[in-house]
Amino acid sequence: MKNTKPLKIGIAGLGTVGTGVLKILTQQKDLISQRCQHPVEVVAVSAKNRSKDRGVDLSKIKWYDNTIDIANDENVDAVVELIGGDTGIAYDLCKTALSNKKHFITANKALIAKRGVELAKLAEKNNVALAFEASVAGGIPVIKTLKEALAGNNITKVSGILNGTCNYILTAMKKTGKSFNTILKDAQDLGYAEADPGFDIDGIDAAHKLTILTALAFGTPVNFEKNYIEGIRKISLQDIKYADELGYKIKLLGVCSSSDDGILQRVCPCLISKKHPVAKVDGVNNAVYIEGDAVGKLVLEGPGAGSGPTASAVLSDIVDVANNRFSFAFGKKSEHLKDKNFIKMDNLKGSYYMRIKVEDKPGVLADITDVLRNEGISVEAVLQKPVPEGGNANIVIITHSVLEKVTMDAVSKITKIGAVLEAPNVIRVEA
Amino acid sequence: MKNTKPLKIGIAGLGTVGTGVLKILTQQKDLISQRCQHPVEVVAVSAKNRSKDRGVDLSKIKWYDNTIDIANDENVDAVVELIGGDTGIAYDLCKTALSNKKHFITANKALIAKRGVELAKLAEKNNVALAFEASVAGGIPVIKTLKEALAGNNITKVSGILNGTCNYILTAMKKTGKSFNTILKDAQDLGYAEADPGFDIDGIDAAHKLTILTALAFGTPVNFEKNYIEGIRKISLQDIKYADELGYKIKLLGVCSSSDDGILQRVCPCLISKKHPVAKVDGVNNAVYIEGDAVGKLVLEGPGAGSGPTASAVLSDIVDVANNRFSFAFGKKSEHLKDKNFIKMDNLKGSYYMRIKVEDKPGVLADITDVLRNEGISVEAVLQKPVPEGGNANIVIITHSVLEKVTMDAVSKITKIGAVLEAPNVIRVEA
Repeated sequence: MKNTKPLKIGIAGLGTVGTGVLKILTQQKDLISQRCQHPVEVVAVSAKNRSKDRGVDLSKIKWYDNTIDIANDENVDAVVELIGGDTGIAYDLCKTALSNKKHFITANKALIAKRGVELAKLAEKNNVALAFEASVAGGIPVIKTLKEALAGNNITKVSGILNGTCNYILTAMKKTGKSFNTILKDAQDLGYAEADPGFDIDGIDAAHKLTILTALAFGTPVNFEKNYIEGIRKISLQDIKYADELGYKIKLLGVCSSSDDGILQRVCPCLISKKHPVAKVDGVNNAVYIEGDAVGKLVLEGPGAGSGPTASAVLSDIVDVANNRFSFAFGKKSEHLKDKNFIKMDNLKGSYYMRIKVEDKPGVLADITDVLRNEGISVEAVLQKPVPEGGNANIVIITHSVLEKVTMDAVSKITKIGAVLEAPNVIRVEA
Repeated sequence: MKNTKPLKIGIAGLGTVGTGVLKILTQQKDLISQRCQHPVEVVAVSAKNRSKDRGVDLSKIKWYDNTIDIANDENVDAVVELIGGDTGIAYDLCKTALSNKKHFITANKALIAKRGVELAKLAEKNNVALAFEASVAGGIPVIKTLKEALAGNNITKVSGILNGTCNYILTAMKKTGKSFNTILKDAQDLGYAEADPGFDIDGIDAAHKLTILTALAFGTPVNFEKNYIEGIRKISLQDIKYADELGYKIKLLGVCSSSDDGILQRVCPCLISKKHPVAKVDGVNNAVYIEGDAVGKLVLEGPGAGSGPTASAVLSDIVDVANNRFSFAFGKKSEHLKDKNFIKMDNLKGSYYMRIKVEDKPGVLADITDVLRNEGISVEAVLQKPVPEGGNANIVIITHSVLEKVTMDAVSKITKIGAVLEAPNVIRVEA
């Protein structure tokens, strides 16, 4: 464990995270070098705009206009990729770096969720690290926890708030009583949501992250295609209020669970009991809940995005590499990553929330409960409230545990009842 | 990264945790071996009672009556110590193992809190691991998080619920309305508290753990003697009720913080806002809150003790060693662990809760607030309630932020007021 030659780093992408990493490595030089067996040195960078003032001195660092050149620089030991995207430059950079026996550290969730196994194999072959702590839940060390801290556990479930934008929107709707569209606009103005928000609010970003967690938790190859994905556009202020009244919050959750039937990997808005630790996590924060057979239940909570937290996670990987403290990308050799059966949402068993907008006239509730009885669905809670438009009402039902398939059959029958004005809004209840 | 020769382990101590470790290594053999570059094999054990049925097959494992022999067995690569205590056999075993170039993995908080630096030096000299994830907060990976995941951060504060027994007692008092002594008795009957409970309820156990966290957070040598330690015997049901009414819970917290003045390391019962994530952690669970300059605020929550969670943490260290994934015991070379100024409690700045039992007669509140005014202490909240004994009342005050020294001066003056019946109960408020 002697200090030997430095670990020489090339950073590709100098946005807020890349600049954050560079700042930490410069400002905390002494601290980092004490924490590493090999001192860390940034020797090359590449970004779109060379002349932009980033508040860091780049004069002594080699600049590449062509990003891929970083991965071909003989002086570079490790490439830090902070560009994004699962095709194009990030992918090419990764393949080139690993093939050239350079460690590859990234915050790129799409790349890992879609091409993780191929890249892990390449890293193994070349005996270098493929590390991606920053790709999931920002500053929360969930990858290190699943891969290293819980290595003695059979993991049975991982769930969590994996997208800060959605959590911000849902929290703000509840707090302000403003509609989804108003809050989304606010979030865009505040920089919490992109101009094109679909990637976040339709659940894609969370699904990328969940895909990585599933692979780590259950030792399967990443399988993005096997995600069930539903975003939060369907969540109305009414749903948030009814949920609150019934003792729940609504959160966009990524959930992967393993049972004898197989693995279920899903991103969808859920009602979650206010007593659950994850329900208490508001604003842009993320939280991850993990169940393991030895450890029991763990909850990790913290900032899921932003320059500092993401840079903190990137540094975790850099320091690991500088201490030769790395092993297989997904916690085991890629040959041991074993395809398991991914089951469909139809097989999900749980409680369901339904908000059914009806004409306020006699017999409607009986018609609805008839359908539920015929499908063998028992009811845990019912609320009926008038809605602003005169003569209409919302009937809100929470069911006991039942199969998704049975629930959806019942819902389609309920939709056909004459006095039911639109397709019920169905939200899963997370135990 | 090829599978090479196995990592051969000797386990000293086969109580619930030792047996738990042995069971995981046996039952999850395939899982563990896939997660390790070196397969893990238990080759030696030692415990007090050889004939006790532990539900595991020991027939193929070498048994040592004399524990120290494990550390001299040439066949053993790593010793797992689950005996406890900072002197005697655990200490001797550790020194012998490290001197013989064997990795040493332990759950022994007293040993590390009191002799951590000496042992870290010995480990460094012999190029082996000294690992103690299980020594703090059971299954919560707080050591890995501080040492590895947050290696790019300047840590400014770590606080947490580090003793499950105290958290159980305080939670149960609030929930049942029963007194401290009744609940302590219940906890003893349930196995949550020892027959001699002082080690837990007087804060010693939490201080051992905090000492380790302080060293990791601030890069100082462990310094158990510099703990301010106060236990929970002083917490009455009344305090819990008043705190509740004012928006707080009472928790035994270990807190270490670093400022320009130095480091403050303290274990004491605190009022903590119900909105703080740590306040929401009830029962025997532990929680750790960490502030770092890059990451911001992280909270880790989970089971702080018990066979499974502690064994899970021990396995984390075993798997790290079996992957050659270890470095310096305290995250940096021991020569870089730098003594810093530890400041006294007098210098703590914060809010204070005081419960003052008084005769219910005119002018008492004015006498008390006179003292506070003269000391320059401003008041954030006041409650006055009658107490069961006729004619007496409790005046409860929460101050604004003020120095501990000033607060304690005021308290001693308040104690001398004629109508004040006993020394006020003073509890710190944690921001």
